[in-house]
Amino acid sequence: MSASGSGETRAAGSLKAPFTWPVRVYWEDTDAGGIVFYANYLKFFERARTEWLRQLGVAQQRLRDETGGMFVVTDTQVRYHRSARLDDLLLVTACVREAGRASLTIGQSALLSPARDGDAPLLLCEGSIRIGWVDARHLRPQRIPTRVVEALQGAG
Amino acid sequence: MSASGSGETRAAGSLKAPFTWPVRVYWEDTDAGGIVFYANYLKFFERARTEWLRQLGVAQQRLRDETGGMFVVTDTQVRYHRSARLDDLLLVTACVREAGRASLTIGQSALLSPARDGDAPLLLCEGSIRIGWVDARHLRPQRIPTRVVEALQGAG
Amino acid sequence: MSASGSGETRAAGSLKAPFTWPVRVYWEDTDAGGIVFYANYLKFFERARTEWLRQLGVAQQRLRDETGGMFVVTDTQVRYHRSARLDDLLLVTACVREAGRASLTIGQSALLSPARDGDAPLLLCEGSIRIGWVDARHLRPQRIPTRVVEALQGAG
Amino acid sequence: MSASGSGETRAAGSLKAPFTWPVRVYWEDTDAGGIVFYANYLKFFERARTEWLRQLGVAQQRLRDETGGMFVVTDTQVRYHRSARLDDLLLVTACVREAGRASLTIGQSALLSPARDGDAPLLLCEGSIRIGWVDARHLRPQRIPTRVVEALQGAG
Repeated sequence: MSASGSGETRAAGSLKAPFTWPVRVYWEDTDAGGIVFYANYLKFFERARTEWLRQLGVAQQRLRDETGGMFVVTDTQVRYHRSARLDDLLLVTACVREAGRASLTIGQSALLSPARDGDAPLLLCEGSIRIGWVDARHLRPQRIPTRVVEALQGAG
Repeated sequence: MSASGSGETRAAGSLKAPFTWPVRVYWEDTDAGGIVFYANYLKFFERARTEWLRQLGVAQQRLRDETGGMFVVTDTQVRYHRSARLDDLLLVTACVREAGRASLTIGQSALLSPARDGDAPLLLCEGSIRIGWVDARHLRPQRIPTRVVEALQGAG
Repeated sequence: MSASGSGETRAAGSLKAPFTWPVRVYWEDTDAGGIVFYANYLKFFERARTEWLRQLGVAQQRLRDETGGMFVVTDTQVRYHRSARLDDLLLVTACVREAGRASLTIGQSALLSPARDGDAPLLLCEGSIRIGWVDARHLRPQRIPTRVVEALQGAG
Repeated sequence: MSASGSGETRAAGSLKAPFTWPVRVYWEDTDAGGIVFYANYLKFFERARTEWLRQLGVAQQRLRDETGGMFVVTDTQVRYHRSARLDDLLLVTACVREAGRASLTIGQSALLSPARDGDAPLLLCEGSIRIGWVDARHLRPQRIPTRVVEALQGAG
């Protein structure tokens, strides 16, 4: 979560490489297997999605205050390849797979940042997250706000 | 979380022993130290408080729907003595320490259920949780609803 | 997590209905949307899997102490249909979909327990969890211990 | 968690202001009250402690690999003043209160980063965390490694 790492990934983002967000592994993320608890990658994915949306001008709390709506996750698929441990630095990516008016599908992955510069990051896990939009009061499905869809289409 | 265990602790409860709620340790609760992550005892304490309140006739979601208010935690103190591991069965207690109109203080502890009948439970940690009441919309402090205070006074 | 509820679901289990484990929704499980945070269903699924294995004679901590190995999750798929709120009582199921020597696939679902007896539970979400076995020290894939595979084959 | 924010706090750190680590509030951190779940501040505190130790040259996973020991938390006290919401940016501080051979006491706080430059951060909560050292295999208390105590004494 160092300043330079964050800056590099954003520069890369502007070249149409996927958006990347650094996530450090803390005690809270691990389990008695000595590795990151698998369900926590869904949290890491969401942190990266949130920061990616924020960079595209979509702030979720403000959007809810203004529209009365919010995102809900409707499908998650994650495939786990390798484990991460305490103190590891992960790079978490997000990119649009499909952007409709009723749902978005976001492709995501978590990579282990290499200990030495020049080494390639190792793929830890990859997933696909489908998201819909509901009114926050009654949780009824609604169309995703136009400004969100347009922001994502520009990002694709 | 077995039926008989739960029944025994409730029977004990009616004899003015502290309310006790069984909590099993799962992978989600542990960390890379191989033990329960210390912050999770606050969750275990809250599960026991919630079930204790429910037994006293206080259901929090319904109370919020009816009054527009909710509990907030204002102070926590926990002292840790021993660790618990995956698959351990804990007994979590709750009792009133102080019940005013503006705040409640609840005494709590987590004990390791003995592997053999007849052995005494081991104290893992103990704490004190102070709780206030706010309106859920603006989070402004309010008096705790009379029915809650009365339910707890009867329990003391 | 009442005694009678737990007893009923176990009785049902012996008639080859899927194993069912009751899970109560607490504050820790919810998010600012007012509903259960989607990633937490993976925790609920794991609690049910753990209790189901325990009922089949497979205690994970003891198994690790004896064999030096442990389960790891290699794939998760979850489809979300409806939301649950604070204080809801869920029924979480687990059943074998596929039991090989290198991996298990477990089918799982979470249902909302009906407020009135006689009403049918509502499906909240359903998923599929694939699990492998590794030695706990080096995380290298290994065959699942025979006693585990046999216990699950008897359960299917 | 912006680059500039992080840089400023580190610069401040070198002037003997307390170490400060930025933490963004995500969905995972909130509960159905619409605010950060109180137990999660213990996680935020630990992230800040971990980064502070890392900056002082103390990397916990490496230390464990080299010494066979690890930190355990023995006491936590937190007082909550104000709430944080989704998307808020927090500043989490850490400083030594007491550094002995058997235990450390760390003072911590979480502040709400002001929306406008020039405004002062608002205190959300403050706490005190006492930490001991154990051998990781048997969890027996031991003296804190000299290099850790010395690193912290230099930081005080």
